[in-house]
Amino acid sequence: MKQQIRILGIDDSPFTFDEKYSAVIGVVMRGGEYLECVLRRQVSIDGTEATAICEQMIQNSRHRRQLKAVMLDGACLGGFNVVDIDMLSKSTNLPVITITRDKPDWKKIKYALQKNFKDWNERLSLLQKGKLHMVPTRHNPIYIKCTGLSLTEAKEIINISTIRGVIPEPIRVAHLIASGITRGESYGKA
Amino acid sequence: MKQQIRILGIDDSPFTFDEKYSAVIGVVMRGGEYLECVLRRQVSIDGTEATAICEQMIQNSRHRRQLKAVMLDGACLGGFNVVDIDMLSKSTNLPVITITRDKPDWKKIKYALQKNFKDWNERLSLLQKGKLHMVPTRHNPIYIKCTGLSLTEAKEIINISTIRGVIPEPIRVAHLIASGITRGESYGKA
Repeated sequence: MKQQIRILGIDDSPFTFDEKYSAVIGVVMRGGEYLECVLRRQVSIDGTEATAICEQMIQNSRHRRQLKAVMLDGACLGGFNVVDIDMLSKSTNLPVITITRDKPDWKKIKYALQKNFKDWNERLSLLQKGKLHMVPTRHNPIYIKCTGLSLTEAKEIINISTIRGVIPEPIRVAHLIASGITRGESYGKA
Repeated sequence: MKQQIRILGIDDSPFTFDEKYSAVIGVVMRGGEYLECVLRRQVSIDGTEATAICEQMIQNSRHRRQLKAVMLDGACLGGFNVVDIDMLSKSTNLPVITITRDKPDWKKIKYALQKNFKDWNERLSLLQKGKLHMVPTRHNPIYIKCTGLSLTEAKEIINISTIRGVIPEPIRVAHLIASGITRGESYGKA
């Protein structure tokens, strides 16, 4: 696999619960090293349009044809606005990988969904769709889902695009921008 | 000089003339390779507080003590809100370098200032303060001013932090973020 493949990393901005929207930042990077483009959209907090927003962001970008993979910091943007990663992969014809540092706590997630959403069952099903893989790293393991490519290919893309720590640069950089533009100074880890 | 020195790059967002403010984006990078932090402030378009805004951005950042240099895409933020780079360097105790692709056209600048500002003479004096150096590169030359360090040191910092083309990464990345968050997709060159 080419070291310089174009990857789109997506993350959302932090928000408070009196806000209606969260900014969604996309970054196009060549491998893990060179930033080529910054994209911005927004999603409604706890809404249901995150999949469509990601799809539009990709389809309308002039980098569309160069992209080889999409990475998400978990499948939720703007609270519990869940991205259907299978649908996103099919509609864009691109592999999609979600990456998180922590194993999802399904008991807690189910409780939060049931408490806040009439359609909690649909959101939970979407979140639980697809196999979760624990991937060991030199540091702590990460948890990934992948669709539109094999687990071996997903691991290779993660490897190519990770410089320090365990989070690939496209997600780490999207996180820094999303938190920095919202809070004035970026903080925390993707 | 260390290859991994922390540099703050600053650029402003594009704006239309019915807007009052322009976003100012700062990025802290180690050399030209690793993004560590994203900062955001705003300046009033054609205002007079750009120097103070840059100073606050630097002094309030938790990366303050690691910073070794500041780079600006020219001395203007938000139209003709001119940064006094000598004052910024003195108040932050950091070297400041401005970099542009084009040699300033003083006739045009003077005309634009006279047409729009009562204090045009002060703005012009600020802009003309300090020696402008043409620095050859492998591509086109760039035009720089530097304060708080020697020209040789400034060239070395530019060298360390430039990966492709002629614009150092801290300015290039700040530009991509500032234009991307404002327009939805970054475009153009710093």
